[in-house]
Amino acid sequence: MPTPRGMRDLPPPVMLLRKKIISTAEKVFERFGFDPMETPILELWESISGKYGDEAENKLMYWFEDPWGGKRYALRYDLTVPLARFISDHPNVSLPFKRYHIGRVYRHDEPQRGRYREFWQCDVDTVGSPYPEAGAEVLKAISTAIDRIGLPGYTIRLNDRRILRGIFEEKLGIRNVVEVYRAIDRLDKVSWSEVEKELKQVVPAGKVEKIRELLDFRGSFDEVLDRINSLYGDVPVVKEAINHLLELRDFAGRIPVRMDLSLVRGLDYYTGPIFEVVVKEPRMGSVAGGGRYDGLIGKLSGRDLPAVGGSIGIERIIDAGLELGVFKLDRKTGTQVFVASINAPGYAMRVADSLRRDFNVRTDLLRRNWKKQIEHARKLGIPVVVLAGKREEENGTAVLIHEGERKEVRLLELSREIRTLLKG
Amino acid sequence: MPTPRGMRDLPPPVMLLRKKIISTAEKVFERFGFDPMETPILELWESISGKYGDEAENKLMYWFEDPWGGKRYALRYDLTVPLARFISDHPNVSLPFKRYHIGRVYRHDEPQRGRYREFWQCDVDTVGSPYPEAGAEVLKAISTAIDRIGLPGYTIRLNDRRILRGIFEEKLGIRNVVEVYRAIDRLDKVSWSEVEKELKQVVPAGKVEKIRELLDFRGSFDEVLDRINSLYGDVPVVKEAINHLLELRDFAGRIPVRMDLSLVRGLDYYTGPIFEVVVKEPRMGSVAGGGRYDGLIGKLSGRDLPAVGGSIGIERIIDAGLELGVFKLDRKTGTQVFVASINAPGYAMRVADSLRRDFNVRTDLLRRNWKKQIEHARKLGIPVVVLAGKREEENGTAVLIHEGERKEVRLLELSREIRTLLKG
Repeated sequence: MPTPRGMRDLPPPVMLLRKKIISTAEKVFERFGFDPMETPILELWESISGKYGDEAENKLMYWFEDPWGGKRYALRYDLTVPLARFISDHPNVSLPFKRYHIGRVYRHDEPQRGRYREFWQCDVDTVGSPYPEAGAEVLKAISTAIDRIGLPGYTIRLNDRRILRGIFEEKLGIRNVVEVYRAIDRLDKVSWSEVEKELKQVVPAGKVEKIRELLDFRGSFDEVLDRINSLYGDVPVVKEAINHLLELRDFAGRIPVRMDLSLVRGLDYYTGPIFEVVVKEPRMGSVAGGGRYDGLIGKLSGRDLPAVGGSIGIERIIDAGLELGVFKLDRKTGTQVFVASINAPGYAMRVADSLRRDFNVRTDLLRRNWKKQIEHARKLGIPVVVLAGKREEENGTAVLIHEGERKEVRLLELSREIRTLLKG
Repeated sequence: MPTPRGMRDLPPPVMLLRKKIISTAEKVFERFGFDPMETPILELWESISGKYGDEAENKLMYWFEDPWGGKRYALRYDLTVPLARFISDHPNVSLPFKRYHIGRVYRHDEPQRGRYREFWQCDVDTVGSPYPEAGAEVLKAISTAIDRIGLPGYTIRLNDRRILRGIFEEKLGIRNVVEVYRAIDRLDKVSWSEVEKELKQVVPAGKVEKIRELLDFRGSFDEVLDRINSLYGDVPVVKEAINHLLELRDFAGRIPVRMDLSLVRGLDYYTGPIFEVVVKEPRMGSVAGGGRYDGLIGKLSGRDLPAVGGSIGIERIIDAGLELGVFKLDRKTGTQVFVASINAPGYAMRVADSLRRDFNVRTDLLRRNWKKQIEHARKLGIPVVVLAGKREEENGTAVLIHEGERKEVRLLELSREIRTLLKG
């Protein structure tokens, strides 16, 4: 009987890799002073309807009525709306409220490589601060997490919604900015001529060329910001964005940032700086992204609070790392030591139990002969095998097998010897 | 907007405690050679229908048809049936297959203290071994996990379904054993006279007194087993159970076990040893339980495999520990150090970033004056405050505040000093 389409079992080899990646991210988020939080997988329909737009609600969102009272529920679609609901239900949390949240979300999308109907988001958000230092922290936390996870060769593309909006509105007289964003956002997936066609439907043709020129503003942070400043620094909202970004850059320290005016991000709710983390190889969408969304919490919770956050795509990071060969799925088990019994199951179990103070240990549970036991341990890739038989029981020893070498060791020294082997 | 009834937000103070408890359990399970696994929250209706009995399917199980194709799904009801489905979908896993699984399950029950509609199970199972050593390992893993979590004064009640079945069938001529189990299982909740009434409906009155006598067989493992052996050791299935339990006891080592023939456990599928972990105080149901279920995997997966497992109730453990005062919900944040800026936000951020190599650190994000910052840190219960101003920046120092004492420290020595304070 299969799993539902687009939803996966995660067997031990996959989980061992995922747990390592997730606990690395958690640790980094905690270093930056974010605290863990959880919300239910189910939300009341009233809590999340009208928040994600028509496509999400009509096409992508799992909703259902329960078989009892006909109450309508939805499976959570992201972790941001639940955060806003949480803030409205917990009006007394101290501000700034800094939380991370790693959990499943559901989208009834067409499954493909790196895209699932049940997948994990790994979010970090600060609610309550309008200042660039809050955004800088989010950027550093995400960048540090990706560094520690070990994904190489990534760049952070940075932009600020206010720059495009300021220029569009003040210099180009464009009023329907969000429609322009939506057309531009497709640049990742389709060619410029496709985007051009769409743009011509929403703005006068003469302005499309101007927009194209703006989208070419990309490169080193300082250069691009200088150029924007000299050309459009007279627009107040652009100036405001430039100052915000300069401060954010100072607080962020050494992270690999590039300015890129063609970055708009898909979601409507961003109001300030936005970013995406992209890898050179393999070719895929962004592996992380986020930005400032000062209006959203107020809209959802009735309590107007500035907020900034970011999200790492666990599935994308794993797929990228596997393709680059920096991650491997070669560990079948986290077990480090297998204690094989040579007709002395009680002794083997006692040796195993004493080693469990320090290591992950298995012992035979199928009453196989010792050669079969060693074969099983080898098949699972368990690095150290310990042989325990009647002779060893009498001697108070066990025989260590590691990479083909055998050595009889006194029980008291067994842990130390194994530790050396595992380090080597 | 509230969460759905019986489902909870877990804010940081609750999550900090839960994460500690869960990671303790995970660590212990790994020590015993169990590996992590995950399955989707949603299962196809076909996968899980007919597995849990009528009450579960008609009353307790969340099922729904999706809004697209009318496909029927259920939210997972436990982690055992998904394990069986996994085994049938992954016929090549090496046996014994040892996995742990900590995750949410859903039951549309009436919410009350310690009972929720969305809650967590924490399962450990070995598939493929019929031997007592596999059961002993499960018992030791669960007992060690509860020890490490720190719940005091628990006892493990042990029984074997074969003992009751053997005596009922061979000595009392009872054929409808499962109905008798169901009546006995209610002893935890209702008085003997209630149970007696129910028993009289399923067996002749003369046998009820005999059953009552059997249920009084409880106490020290050796004594009770001796008594059963001398009275009923001639029944082959009873003898088989006694031998299995004696071996299991030898492999299990020093764990606080008591025999208790009145333990039957609610689920129908157990076939051998069964156990429950109970605490003296506070009065509540068991905090963990499990047993051998040799028929279930075959019934669900079409592949007949013996299995044994156990489950810790995270919610019960937490509620018990909080009532006993061994756990507290007093940590509002995992942050260890707050770096307060005295008009030197850039310097404060750099000091914070350098401390993030070793500690969980927050810094001001609201541009408050330094007294307000310290007040905020105190309110959150952050143990160490570091003051960073222009004077300290010039000196290459920072001022450490801990329990009312202040001390100016060179940056290079700051981590070491803080480590000492946090240990003290």
